[in-house]
Amino acid sequence: MTKANDSTPKRTPIEEIGKVGLIDRLLTTVGTSLSDTVCFGEEAGHHWISSQKLLLEGIDFDLIYTPLKHLGYKAVLSVLGPIVAHNYTPCALSLNIGLSKRFCIEDVEELWSGVSAALQENKITNISLDLSSSLTGLTISLSSQGKQKTEVFVQTPKAQSGELLCITGNVGAAFMGLQLLEREKLLFNNNPEVQPQLEGYKFILQSYLSPQLNTSVGESFANNDILPSDGVFITNGLADAVKYLCKKSNLGAKVFLDKIPIASQTFEMAEELHMDAITAALNGGDDFQILYTVPLSKYETIKKELPQLDVIGHLTSDSGYACLVTPDGAEIELKAQGWSERAAD
Amino acid sequence: MTKANDSTPKRTPIEEIGKVGLIDRLLTTVGTSLSDTVCFGEEAGHHWISSQKLLLEGIDFDLIYTPLKHLGYKAVLSVLGPIVAHNYTPCALSLNIGLSKRFCIEDVEELWSGVSAALQENKITNISLDLSSSLTGLTISLSSQGKQKTEVFVQTPKAQSGELLCITGNVGAAFMGLQLLEREKLLFNNNPEVQPQLEGYKFILQSYLSPQLNTSVGESFANNDILPSDGVFITNGLADAVKYLCKKSNLGAKVFLDKIPIASQTFEMAEELHMDAITAALNGGDDFQILYTVPLSKYETIKKELPQLDVIGHLTSDSGYACLVTPDGAEIELKAQGWSERAAD
Repeated sequence: MTKANDSTPKRTPIEEIGKVGLIDRLLTTVGTSLSDTVCFGEEAGHHWISSQKLLLEGIDFDLIYTPLKHLGYKAVLSVLGPIVAHNYTPCALSLNIGLSKRFCIEDVEELWSGVSAALQENKITNISLDLSSSLTGLTISLSSQGKQKTEVFVQTPKAQSGELLCITGNVGAAFMGLQLLEREKLLFNNNPEVQPQLEGYKFILQSYLSPQLNTSVGESFANNDILPSDGVFITNGLADAVKYLCKKSNLGAKVFLDKIPIASQTFEMAEELHMDAITAALNGGDDFQILYTVPLSKYETIKKELPQLDVIGHLTSDSGYACLVTPDGAEIELKAQGWSERAAD
Repeated sequence: MTKANDSTPKRTPIEEIGKVGLIDRLLTTVGTSLSDTVCFGEEAGHHWISSQKLLLEGIDFDLIYTPLKHLGYKAVLSVLGPIVAHNYTPCALSLNIGLSKRFCIEDVEELWSGVSAALQENKITNISLDLSSSLTGLTISLSSQGKQKTEVFVQTPKAQSGELLCITGNVGAAFMGLQLLEREKLLFNNNPEVQPQLEGYKFILQSYLSPQLNTSVGESFANNDILPSDGVFITNGLADAVKYLCKKSNLGAKVFLDKIPIASQTFEMAEELHMDAITAALNGGDDFQILYTVPLSKYETIKKELPQLDVIGHLTSDSGYACLVTPDGAEIELKAQGWSERAAD
């Protein structure tokens, strides 16, 4: 009996079973079959929403330090996020994966294992999958649809001046996790003998590599007779989310610096890298938290019944002006994020 | 008064008005505003469908010979196609454009002018737009949602053996248009003094660069009491569409070679390039036609009342076996398309 060489992972070209063969194999794992579209409804008394996300290798993720399984999981959450934030329940997902020759069947299966884990956790069985050719690495395009009872839709109030701004958890951790991974990548590129130093930073690494989506807040709101007027999925920094909310509602906002939840590891990593934890929290990105606005009258209820929420400020009538208030009372206007790196190709 | 130099088109960096500024400007032209999602429904008595499309520069289009306006128009039709084919009415569209530094505001506006023309023609006002950074050229990700009356959904029969296969128009023309453009590109690359020779081939060039989507067939079916059991949008060649239909319905198909509509310019160009027009029709791609299956009993009605449809064959009970029948009665099994070029990056 010959002993298999376990140290070399198998790499099977996709051409061996073909594009349709691979799509079939992946869809079987989630109990569905080939389809060029997803169908949903009719469910009487429901409203619908659709969300879309495009993830490009080199811009949105780096496969040097991002395991494909984590990437698949995170990609699904990134398109479900806005649906959950708007208080809808995700029910269908379409995925198109663009692949260059570098990727083999095992890679796609690894990515898919993360995708299907996220689909199962969120009870989504209505799925469409397609694979495309790509000249340049991995491209992931997702869209998802969600539903909401029409009675909720009708009752949802418009955001008002004076309402509270709440977030579902700490911000800036994912960005500092990314900075740590980038530092170790740089060290490794300079000297491949160097072992990555990642100990003691599990929290910020997890925040970046396998974020969680808080899908239970909507239920907690309902249980406490709170109807948030709007929700924004925070992926491009807290400042961006607050400014977006102001623009949508034609209002202003005050965010209190000392109320923004920032994890201790975020501060530690920022100090180690000579960076600013506050900037990471405001402009870092990849937080996967939700920013809600709720009536001021619900302040006590939130403090008591929804301890997972942090009240960080409130809306004002000062249309379009969003600012950060420092502990000494100074106001600093929040700036919109610029572009992330666009390359001159 | 100084005379403006009209020969140099203006190229304004997107950074001048910023990402959100540009999104705002584009959305204003179609009377809508910034939104991270699209919402639709409730419409009592309707079913919903969602379609998604990913278009990558270098794989799905070549900007050397594809005007951005045409590309924008065609991109929208490519995501509406499957919705129309399934007998739904498109009602919402989300678009994400990935841009490298090479693209300026005027480019995006040019692309958008094609997008908005297609949206207006199809009466879609429910739109979400986002811009992303890209390391490598232009990436267009689209998703669209459509609706169908539940009574239609419930009545739609499953495809049956013996049913007719019909298509909405000729196939292979777009592929031959693409071959012509590729030939002229090659000649130009070898000698930039050479002027492109495109005269006399307007039909195949238009088929590739600005295809039309036949959105009126559904109504014609309804007016003649025909309920097609299924529709497939033909983008990857007729053979691919027929095989997909067989797979979905667990049936077989016979397509009669002399019934496939092929335009005379398609034959002419194929001859000029020493290619096979039949192969272009079967495997060419980009046809933007729809393949329908309708009951055999409706044959006379279709011939008389829906002359825009060509009956090209029928379904059989021979599960998974799709073949082409030549005029002398020989059967050639239809092959699935391979991958388009995946690059070893």
